[in-house]
Amino acid sequence: MSELNRRWRVAAMPSERLETSHFELETSDLPEVPDGQVKCRVLWISIDAAQRAWFQGATYRAAIQIGDTMPAFCIGQVVQSRCDDFAAGDIVTGHLGWQDYSVVDPHDLQRLVPAAPLSNYLSVLGITGLTAYFGLLEVGEAKAGETVVVSGAAGATGSLVGQIAKKQGCRVVGICGSPEKQKWLTSELGFDAAVNYRDDAFRQQLKEACPDGIDVFFDNVGGAALDNALSIMAYRGRVVCCGVVSQYDTSTPVRGARGVPGLLIVKSVTMRGFLYTDYSERWDEALQVIQGWLQDGSLKVAEDVLEGLEKAPEGLIGVLNGSNVGKRMIHVADPA
Amino acid sequence: MSELNRRWRVAAMPSERLETSHFELETSDLPEVPDGQVKCRVLWISIDAAQRAWFQGATYRAAIQIGDTMPAFCIGQVVQSRCDDFAAGDIVTGHLGWQDYSVVDPHDLQRLVPAAPLSNYLSVLGITGLTAYFGLLEVGEAKAGETVVVSGAAGATGSLVGQIAKKQGCRVVGICGSPEKQKWLTSELGFDAAVNYRDDAFRQQLKEACPDGIDVFFDNVGGAALDNALSIMAYRGRVVCCGVVSQYDTSTPVRGARGVPGLLIVKSVTMRGFLYTDYSERWDEALQVIQGWLQDGSLKVAEDVLEGLEKAPEGLIGVLNGSNVGKRMIHVADPA
Repeated sequence: MSELNRRWRVAAMPSERLETSHFELETSDLPEVPDGQVKCRVLWISIDAAQRAWFQGATYRAAIQIGDTMPAFCIGQVVQSRCDDFAAGDIVTGHLGWQDYSVVDPHDLQRLVPAAPLSNYLSVLGITGLTAYFGLLEVGEAKAGETVVVSGAAGATGSLVGQIAKKQGCRVVGICGSPEKQKWLTSELGFDAAVNYRDDAFRQQLKEACPDGIDVFFDNVGGAALDNALSIMAYRGRVVCCGVVSQYDTSTPVRGARGVPGLLIVKSVTMRGFLYTDYSERWDEALQVIQGWLQDGSLKVAEDVLEGLEKAPEGLIGVLNGSNVGKRMIHVADPA
Repeated sequence: MSELNRRWRVAAMPSERLETSHFELETSDLPEVPDGQVKCRVLWISIDAAQRAWFQGATYRAAIQIGDTMPAFCIGQVVQSRCDDFAAGDIVTGHLGWQDYSVVDPHDLQRLVPAAPLSNYLSVLGITGLTAYFGLLEVGEAKAGETVVVSGAAGATGSLVGQIAKKQGCRVVGICGSPEKQKWLTSELGFDAAVNYRDDAFRQQLKEACPDGIDVFFDNVGGAALDNALSIMAYRGRVVCCGVVSQYDTSTPVRGARGVPGLLIVKSVTMRGFLYTDYSERWDEALQVIQGWLQDGSLKVAEDVLEGLEKAPEGLIGVLNGSNVGKRMIHVADPA
């Protein structure tokens, strides 16, 4: 039985803003599964702003090339296995890409035994949750009574960071891009304050929301949010460098964070970049804690789901424009 | 007995490069010593690139104003005391300024009981030594086998950082500004390599000197040295932000370190600013260790002494141009 596969291939490299024309939906036969490999049905696709950065050059992964199936972290289900490690029906995670089916090496898959809705494994129980947890508590060392500011606060990671910081006993201020998001952060997620970086008075509002300066700035965005936060850090403040969404979708990124390193010196401030993989030996511990918060209802999960593989390009473009609330993902199919 | 005092007052604010015309040597009577205060003879004046930054605005101290006696950390001797805490003859340290005599509040003085040449208390046994020690070992967490790069390597702090890093078992690469300094660093101070940031091939030479990337970059300079080092940091590398000499003597400082925060994220790099005062409760411990190194002859002291108060302006301008080798200071007088 030969199955048809739809895949989004990269049709052109973006130089400025990403557009749907940079992708092309192609339908073709799926190749036979070679010995030792498995075929997966893609169920859920994670949409992340960092995917735009993958076009900019090699980083922790190779740069995207024209003709590539657009890469993405996904949840899938094994439909045919020619290896011993996986059987048809297994639920897995891995980089399956923007497509219906993916033929992959089993070493690139992790088995998932779901104890929660599958989508949660792309949000709070997945990379996003681990990033928020380790970024805030380990990299940022957020302590009770401190002021935590998070940029991209209504996004996937930011919405979790703020909630975890509240649990930790911190005063939490969110930076976001619309009055609706401001309201959602304070009334739904329990943030102490939220400011809109698109307001003319943003800088002043951020300052007023942090009368004692910023102890921990969890930065998903870079650019103006970072520049302004850096200028009001408290003595021995920590900047958690998690993402630079403001600089991904452009061919003219700003040169660097304003005042670095001078501002770090005069206030003894630390800036620390990290990836969730830095803490791989402690993932299980973190996931148990997070699962507890889900079970007692004290952590709200915000997922922003688009229906259908065809929505992938506009889904990513939307994340780059800040149109999502919570973790954006594409629902492609349900498990068999 | 009314004594004449010579003082360098700030005659004009520098907008671009600092020049001798920004200072004016004024001779006047010293005021009477008010009750509760002391009069000090200035013996040694510390010359630091950071003094140029004090013109740029308030930081950890107030900005310099026109008419001020040029501030500086000094070693002095009490010549008249109208307080209980100090007696004539006491050797002290404090911000006495570019002048022959200073009338000060005793709370602004620390008593010094010298066990080494007085000049050492401005270099290896003073702020410079403490900055190198805590910056490298605590902020940078330099460990045996790691590659340590230091900018301003032939300067006051850099020349100590490199030597302490060698003691720690690190591979040490210095960045400096002349072939003479390169030679001095490798042949006299035991650096493994030294590169000249003025060479066209600087970037390539730095890369070749650090085949496994940079684990600790101790940065006194900022600018191009920092940009280039950031691009070759090793996974989990640390940037010790100690100074930004390249950006002090200009009205058009660069916007910020290139690639921050993106480069920090992809390599899990930490940048940390600090001041030696962050470690005040551990100064004694550090000074004991350093004193041990001086006694066993394993740490070389590099002091760059100019003779006479009149040399202060050109002494500071020279430091900004990199003309010093080791810690620059002005010898004003000997203790009575």
